[in-house]
Amino acid sequence: MTVRAEPAQHAGMRASNLALVLGEVARTSPVSRAQVAARTGLTKSSVSGLVTDLISAGLIVESAPAAAERGRPATGLGLAPGGAAGLGLEINVDYLAAVVTDLTGAPRYHHVVRRDNRDRAADEVVADLIEVARTATASAASQGLPLAGGCVAVPGLAVDGTLVRAPNLGWPEVDLADAVGEATGLEIDVQNEANLAALGEMWFGAHQHEGEPLRDFVHVSGEIGIGGGIVIGGEVFRGAHAGAGELGHVVVAPDGPRCGCGGHGCLERMAGQQEILARAGVATMSDLTRACEAGDRAALDAVTDAGRHLGVALASVLTLLDPAAIVLGGAFATLAPWLAAATSASVSHHTGAADPPALLVSGLGSDAAVRGAAGTVVRRVIADPAAYLTRHTPR
Amino acid sequence: MTVRAEPAQHAGMRASNLALVLGEVARTSPVSRAQVAARTGLTKSSVSGLVTDLISAGLIVESAPAAAERGRPATGLGLAPGGAAGLGLEINVDYLAAVVTDLTGAPRYHHVVRRDNRDRAADEVVADLIEVARTATASAASQGLPLAGGCVAVPGLAVDGTLVRAPNLGWPEVDLADAVGEATGLEIDVQNEANLAALGEMWFGAHQHEGEPLRDFVHVSGEIGIGGGIVIGGEVFRGAHAGAGELGHVVVAPDGPRCGCGGHGCLERMAGQQEILARAGVATMSDLTRACEAGDRAALDAVTDAGRHLGVALASVLTLLDPAAIVLGGAFATLAPWLAAATSASVSHHTGAADPPALLVSGLGSDAAVRGAAGTVVRRVIADPAAYLTRHTPR
Repeated sequence: MTVRAEPAQHAGMRASNLALVLGEVARTSPVSRAQVAARTGLTKSSVSGLVTDLISAGLIVESAPAAAERGRPATGLGLAPGGAAGLGLEINVDYLAAVVTDLTGAPRYHHVVRRDNRDRAADEVVADLIEVARTATASAASQGLPLAGGCVAVPGLAVDGTLVRAPNLGWPEVDLADAVGEATGLEIDVQNEANLAALGEMWFGAHQHEGEPLRDFVHVSGEIGIGGGIVIGGEVFRGAHAGAGELGHVVVAPDGPRCGCGGHGCLERMAGQQEILARAGVATMSDLTRACEAGDRAALDAVTDAGRHLGVALASVLTLLDPAAIVLGGAFATLAPWLAAATSASVSHHTGAADPPALLVSGLGSDAAVRGAAGTVVRRVIADPAAYLTRHTPR
Repeated sequence: MTVRAEPAQHAGMRASNLALVLGEVARTSPVSRAQVAARTGLTKSSVSGLVTDLISAGLIVESAPAAAERGRPATGLGLAPGGAAGLGLEINVDYLAAVVTDLTGAPRYHHVVRRDNRDRAADEVVADLIEVARTATASAASQGLPLAGGCVAVPGLAVDGTLVRAPNLGWPEVDLADAVGEATGLEIDVQNEANLAALGEMWFGAHQHEGEPLRDFVHVSGEIGIGGGIVIGGEVFRGAHAGAGELGHVVVAPDGPRCGCGGHGCLERMAGQQEILARAGVATMSDLTRACEAGDRAALDAVTDAGRHLGVALASVLTLLDPAAIVLGGAFATLAPWLAAATSASVSHHTGAADPPALLVSGLGSDAAVRGAAGTVVRRVIADPAAYLTRHTPR
């Protein structure tokens, strides 16, 4: 009854059917053509044609036999480990990182360069990042992995490929998508690191294996700054101006001191790494964990105090957003052995909840954002294989 | 290519086309059949058939000529003011209310009974609510308005028609949907009043006329308790356990006193009506506004202090959710002349934002929730007219 032209409708339908089939293979593999047909509602002959296209595009491989529902075992299909790969990059306050992830989500390359980027010019750091990116793309090439694109995680607000605000770096606007895209020949996306860390946790974190994957949760991303990623129904919630989730600037001390953001009494000002290190009287995070392990009083007090402040912010998060879980990531994951009990107690004190959602601890730590960045690239291929096919085939 | 049975597909398509047509008429009226066809992509003959069905179901009327795009003016279509109506009811801590809204959203009956419900048994208050509902349904009948259903706004958590928690009433679980449904013969839904107030503001508030309607905002609902309604993309955000938006229990005074919820330093404990009245040394909200109008120092101090606390909570809301706007409703709308400046200053102090989103003041005040309740009923008819037709025709 609609008035759309037939050919457009047909191309749109083929694209959506390719996505249906690849999505089903991504969800459960090995899976047979017949199972894919049954689960998607497509006919067996349609599935066969679509699978042939996806195999020749290198996105699907025939693997071990799928568990037969009846009769003889059928050929199993799986995502191709040699198919489209994603490049994840990260600029953070005290490190640069790169990850190459294959289509199955497995990391195939991972490199971190620790260096304080706060007193350096943006150009200089971007030049370093491009070096890091080139080494990563060379590794992908040597492994025969075709990169479908890249994504850069940044500690700030990114709009249309440009880093527009990064309070903890103090840079002017930087057009990262252009600079990194030109150097690598890839299409580059730029996203906030706290949001990418939340996605990394959802896709690659251990908690995805506890029953269902987490789809409604808040990820606390503690590096030099404190960030938050709000995931609702499996998607990052970005707010009206892409600024949502700034957990580090929730007010935890209304009469507290001025924060770098211009506000007062923000969580980051009371429980950020610099504050903790200063109170503990140590210089680095590894000094701090060593001091905590040794039972140093000042270090433990500094960490539990930060944990209490974090609990105040999380109490407000729970009351406003009612998430299914909270995941402590980044530095807070590292400090969890000494911090989590104080945080839990503070959450209980401020919410009065007898049974608040568990505080989970991320196993990915500071790698969550760069892994999430690489993951967004391959997830995009799985969500829209037709777009990938158009650009990357015929070969 | 799908394997669904034909008849089901046809019925589903008719239902979705009825909704397309009625939705278009609801969006802009008067509108001609040809305009509806052009905007929905349906053929003119399909639109004619669907419009005939909607007219005979009493949901659409032919009205003034629609502005002709070319040629002679066509007959205009509009929502029928005598079509499906909605009954909104509200139980709050110090009043009961009822509204009947017609299909165009216009209130056709409105009644409020002021009485403190805190020391009364749930049964007794529900009996009063049923009386209020019966008077409202009688008024709808006398106006020839067919009620499509009802919705009860409650100051607490409602699950599947049951009020399961209402801290400020202190009641046990009450199956309101059953009790009110049996007494009125209507299908009854039960929803949190703060969420319904946010919807009422979106649908009926003055701010919908400032350019676009608000679709991403937080509505502050201040009655005896303080609630919040988070609207994202035009929908209420409810969280993982239907508990999201509890603005009254955001922590604004980490070292503050115990709140009724069991937590500590919650906004409601620091800036709720009881706290403000006690600090101002007056007994009722009307005493308080009179004292503020007279420039009474204690009253003004109590109100501005509440405004400061509200600003701390809103700073955290802005930083976490990044809404396009915040709307002050309920008692905070009434107190806005003396409270809003302190709230704005506190928001700026705690966020450091040079240009935070404007604090808008609701024109609906305490009527927002009951109007939102009635609105949900008629909006549901507009979203799914086929379901309404099945139950309410033939006549």
